[in-house]
Amino acid sequence: MVNVAVLGYGTVGSGVVEVLNTNKEIIKRNVGEELKVKYVLDLREFEGDPVQEMLVHDYDVILKDKDVKIIAEAMGGEEPAYTFTKNALLAGKSVCTSNKELVAKHGAELLAIAKKNNANYFFEAAVGGGIPIIRPLNDCLTADEITEISGILNGTTNYILTQMSEKGAAFEEVLKDAQDKGYAERNPEADVEGYDACRKIAILTSLVTGKQVDFEDIHTEGISKITETDFKYAKAMKASIKLLGISRKIDGKFYSMVAPFLVKSKNPLYSVKGVFNGILVHGNMVDDVMFYGQGAGKRPTASAVVSDIVEAAKNLGKNIPVEWEETKYELGKFSECKGKFFVRMKDKGLDDEEMTTLFEKLGEVLYVRAEGVTGEVAFITNEIKEVELTELLSKFEDVYSIIRVDF
Amino acid sequence: MVNVAVLGYGTVGSGVVEVLNTNKEIIKRNVGEELKVKYVLDLREFEGDPVQEMLVHDYDVILKDKDVKIIAEAMGGEEPAYTFTKNALLAGKSVCTSNKELVAKHGAELLAIAKKNNANYFFEAAVGGGIPIIRPLNDCLTADEITEISGILNGTTNYILTQMSEKGAAFEEVLKDAQDKGYAERNPEADVEGYDACRKIAILTSLVTGKQVDFEDIHTEGISKITETDFKYAKAMKASIKLLGISRKIDGKFYSMVAPFLVKSKNPLYSVKGVFNGILVHGNMVDDVMFYGQGAGKRPTASAVVSDIVEAAKNLGKNIPVEWEETKYELGKFSECKGKFFVRMKDKGLDDEEMTTLFEKLGEVLYVRAEGVTGEVAFITNEIKEVELTELLSKFEDVYSIIRVDF
Repeated sequence: MVNVAVLGYGTVGSGVVEVLNTNKEIIKRNVGEELKVKYVLDLREFEGDPVQEMLVHDYDVILKDKDVKIIAEAMGGEEPAYTFTKNALLAGKSVCTSNKELVAKHGAELLAIAKKNNANYFFEAAVGGGIPIIRPLNDCLTADEITEISGILNGTTNYILTQMSEKGAAFEEVLKDAQDKGYAERNPEADVEGYDACRKIAILTSLVTGKQVDFEDIHTEGISKITETDFKYAKAMKASIKLLGISRKIDGKFYSMVAPFLVKSKNPLYSVKGVFNGILVHGNMVDDVMFYGQGAGKRPTASAVVSDIVEAAKNLGKNIPVEWEETKYELGKFSECKGKFFVRMKDKGLDDEEMTTLFEKLGEVLYVRAEGVTGEVAFITNEIKEVELTELLSKFEDVYSIIRVDF
Repeated sequence: MVNVAVLGYGTVGSGVVEVLNTNKEIIKRNVGEELKVKYVLDLREFEGDPVQEMLVHDYDVILKDKDVKIIAEAMGGEEPAYTFTKNALLAGKSVCTSNKELVAKHGAELLAIAKKNNANYFFEAAVGGGIPIIRPLNDCLTADEITEISGILNGTTNYILTQMSEKGAAFEEVLKDAQDKGYAERNPEADVEGYDACRKIAILTSLVTGKQVDFEDIHTEGISKITETDFKYAKAMKASIKLLGISRKIDGKFYSMVAPFLVKSKNPLYSVKGVFNGILVHGNMVDDVMFYGQGAGKRPTASAVVSDIVEAAKNLGKNIPVEWEETKYELGKFSECKGKFFVRMKDKGLDDEEMTTLFEKLGEVLYVRAEGVTGEVAFITNEIKEVELTELLSKFEDVYSIIRVDF
């Protein structure tokens, strides 16, 4: 029997207990022995819930109990999760988590501590919820040079964008609906402004480069500026708008960003709708591989945490190496990123001198029209650097939209 | 340094050598030491190809060389691959393969031999080409009760169906085009009649049940009877026709089949087009997870074989347990499978007595019309057992199509 402690009895923590109970027999078969939840740490009481019997309020009880070999950290946030995790690893206990903030910030350090103490720090649930992506990256795509990862890494924003696309509704309206349905938080900033996706692409890029990618270095835009009119154009182009976290290797260096992109149906991410997530990995040999599933939710996330617990239980006392050093990885400069852009701006007419100059400098562009939209000009540029486009458009007050194009 | 031997220098075998050479440094980093191809076994000579230096014609050279720890079996077919694999495992060498025929038939036995000899038998490339699916099933989705696997497991048939759908072309015409492009074999039977997909779903179902699923027990239909008219109806229903390998757990028992299915866009397999494969796994906790990528081709397949070699090299002398016993798994009876069916038959008019009786027995059906198609009646049944539908339709000579419906 392997004893497990669960830190935090919120959505994920209670999910972990539920998965361990519901699938007890299958998990026992997979591990080779039974997994038992010995403690659940939470400051609250849960009268009437069977969890009450395992409930402790003092982390030291868990830390000092030599029988506890594996800890599921389901608290979220940086502290006290960081200190708890560090101390567990120092004590030779493995830690499995869904805490993307902590992994993005301290992953390399915690992996190093785990290694020194013959334990494991696993975080399958930190990216893509229930979708297996961390272990496939570490243990399956090991014959390839990974040259690109692009993903729909946040279910809330994908739900909002899908609704806007299908219903032609405004951002604020759909956000409210998503909040009512529990798909979006009351304070939706972390999702809507791309911060959540940013941490996830930082983790994935760290694993691919083997070094520490600081999420603060990643240019991040959210979806709050996307309008119904943008979707009218998207429809006219048979495209959709998706919030992507992208890391792309160009001339030996990775460039990363989180931003809305126009994508077409030949991109498998185009078909990832609603709260689902999709992560597309490109290897120099395997070509495109996509992993798809529920990127959030109690049971899918808990399923990933428990799969990590199973892996930890099968490898007690043995560290599984993960290449992610503490050395900082210097991402390519965002301003130097090249790409095509969809631009909407006020139509000042053919005689306008500034506009003539703009289009001279842009060279050939592809003009786009959308049904019922007037008084503006919309086009797709050729490949151009971020900094150059910004510079060219800086003179114009009435730029309505700039959306990157991935086709 | 770990020495590797490659059996067979055809498409996959030469791909394995290419991947090992091209990504030498990355692979070295992932293994912790260098992988070296010491031998390539082939009956042919390859004058002018650098492989000539490692070429041997006698398998015993490889078998007796204690320095060879890992063998990539890329010969295909049952013999001599079976004997070679068995002898390698008996000698404590790990074997990595893309040979689905061999894995489907002798997987359980070879896994048992590997276990006894502290070696590994890996076959990531046998299903889904470059797509990670075997290791994710064994090592990632370990917290779930897997209740369904459905997949587009054959790129050739998916390419043909996609072309038929997009171009409105006939099966024979598209097949010829696929043969000219090298996507289909000159003798296309194994792909087109579903035999290839059948072996793959047998392997996946064996891994999920932990027992031996004999591919001969799986009801298998191909795509050669699918017509342009079927696609006209599919279009009218906003559906597509896909050749699926399906295993579904009902009342504790798995039912498996390979057959064309009508699917709609809410099924993520709907968007899997061309030569791509997609494998959808449903777990009781994780819900739907899909794995997508190139299901065939030299480099993707070789990428998967080499990822197995990497795993074998990281675990020399240590067997990684895989649950797949030799005990036969008794699949649920195909005739008892329940489902909805799309049926097209000659319209004998409202007065026809037999037809009146048929529709009385079928209960409510959903009639479907397709543009420009006349003289026939087409409908979707309610859920009904395979055996019952066959019985009801046996009296009619002019049944043009029966396609299962997955929506």
